[in-house]
Amino acid sequence: MSDSHQNLLKAIRPTTFITSTKLRDHLGLDITIATETFQHTGSFKFRAGYNLALNVPNDEILTASSGNFGQALAYACKLLGKKCTVVMPITSAQVKIDAVRGFGATVDLIDTAKIGRNERVAQLAEQMPNAYFASAYDDQLVIDGNSTLGDELAVENFDVIIVPVGGGGLISGIVTGLHRHAMPTLVVGAEPLLGNDAARSFRAGELIKNDLEPKTIADGARTISLGKLNWPIIKDGVADIVEVSDENIAEAVKMYFDLANLKCEPTGALSLGAILEDRERFAGRKICLVVSGGNVDAAVYRELI
Amino acid sequence: MSDSHQNLLKAIRPTTFITSTKLRDHLGLDITIATETFQHTGSFKFRAGYNLALNVPNDEILTASSGNFGQALAYACKLLGKKCTVVMPITSAQVKIDAVRGFGATVDLIDTAKIGRNERVAQLAEQMPNAYFASAYDDQLVIDGNSTLGDELAVENFDVIIVPVGGGGLISGIVTGLHRHAMPTLVVGAEPLLGNDAARSFRAGELIKNDLEPKTIADGARTISLGKLNWPIIKDGVADIVEVSDENIAEAVKMYFDLANLKCEPTGALSLGAILEDRERFAGRKICLVVSGGNVDAAVYRELI
Repeated sequence: MSDSHQNLLKAIRPTTFITSTKLRDHLGLDITIATETFQHTGSFKFRAGYNLALNVPNDEILTASSGNFGQALAYACKLLGKKCTVVMPITSAQVKIDAVRGFGATVDLIDTAKIGRNERVAQLAEQMPNAYFASAYDDQLVIDGNSTLGDELAVENFDVIIVPVGGGGLISGIVTGLHRHAMPTLVVGAEPLLGNDAARSFRAGELIKNDLEPKTIADGARTISLGKLNWPIIKDGVADIVEVSDENIAEAVKMYFDLANLKCEPTGALSLGAILEDRERFAGRKICLVVSGGNVDAAVYRELI
Repeated sequence: MSDSHQNLLKAIRPTTFITSTKLRDHLGLDITIATETFQHTGSFKFRAGYNLALNVPNDEILTASSGNFGQALAYACKLLGKKCTVVMPITSAQVKIDAVRGFGATVDLIDTAKIGRNERVAQLAEQMPNAYFASAYDDQLVIDGNSTLGDELAVENFDVIIVPVGGGGLISGIVTGLHRHAMPTLVVGAEPLLGNDAARSFRAGELIKNDLEPKTIADGARTISLGKLNWPIIKDGVADIVEVSDENIAEAVKMYFDLANLKCEPTGALSLGAILEDRERFAGRKICLVVSGGNVDAAVYRELI
């Protein structure tokens, strides 16, 4: 094991496994939850952000994120003494802007009606020639960071692991980790029906994009497309991608609240949502539901429960 | 270790330790959360309920509980093949009545305007001469069951452990467990100001009761008095009892939601509430906050966050 990988393992928190008798009985399924809601900064993204900040030679890192990746990268950079700039839309929740700033990063607020995210990133990249531009999913260091969760899941001998899908960073990492242990576990993606580019890509056998940013409540999965590096890993290593309605995402958030005492964000509830789409399909299997994160505004959560 | 103790340890789930950088930074304190929200039936009470059902020779157990102990005992009896009857007020939340019934127990609903809880228990005890009457806190088997959490906390080398106090079953169990390991850790109780019988007893050096059931939002701590068996353990083994206002209980529930992704019931938030009463007092110590449970109605929780 390399020094860098050992440092990564020291920095991240192992995932938290939860089993809820009430949830199991309610669904009649052998479910174990692997939740990343208690990971540093409240989502799995810290695994990727830390691995990236640890391994790029640059002292400055630039990213565009209105959500969990910005917080994760900002905190990783703080721990590693690197400079971090996060481009965020001016419409982002104040609590998220404050969180990124709280971790010592510079927040670059943009009015997306006036300038596109990519355009602003290009401008900043020109002003910061020594900065590394970090994608939240389409980067080998991101996939490698997330693969540590695959390592943790491999020892548990699940029959099937269901994983939320946005840009594909988490699921491609989990597949990579499981392969390292030669585990035959089935990996199933769970994607919002309202932004079903991954499911369509999977059926077509080629990478297909959404036309617009999807308007799903699963804000962590409002991606235009899977990443170029994630797609071949998903195409070859994933058993299926289930499309989850926003109704079932909301129902899953509430079910976690009522039956498992788990505070979970809508994107994190996608894997349970996939079960709600078709319970019969998973009967008799030892199932792991990956919950990717727990950061959700109180106002949104209040409506959901 | 006795067979019975080994069976208890097999049945319970170890507590879940959580550290939140956001919470630590926000309070400027070295805080670790030990949460029982993911224990079977969602609270620490399962430790006590299982130990009791495991060790009494009776095949029937009777209790009065509108809250977590009823669910815990019902589930323990289900696992151990014993009969369980739970006296509950007719005004209990339907979700709690359903949970107890879901675990196979008989729910005896009473109109507390017409008959007292103790009176009904006495009636039932006469009808069920072979039943064991289980107190939720004032029973050596309850204290012994809860002492398993003390064993788990002993290995973590905390300077101070703050514990919610209602009837005193949890804190007397934790003190018992820590003593077994000769740990010098300070144990501090956290009690609602609106039902401060334990704090008053502690100051007076003798057991004092509340006149009426306290009207605090911490419904798990609406007890008239500490138990007779709990009191001497608390008197000798606890460093102090902090009185927590309902405002700080509510603030603590929200703080766990915002900063630690933890869904916690008001009673469970008492230990963080004690910190909010006087942050300076705990500075520089390695603190453990015990979160006793997570079962809270959505309607109540919505208001709190």
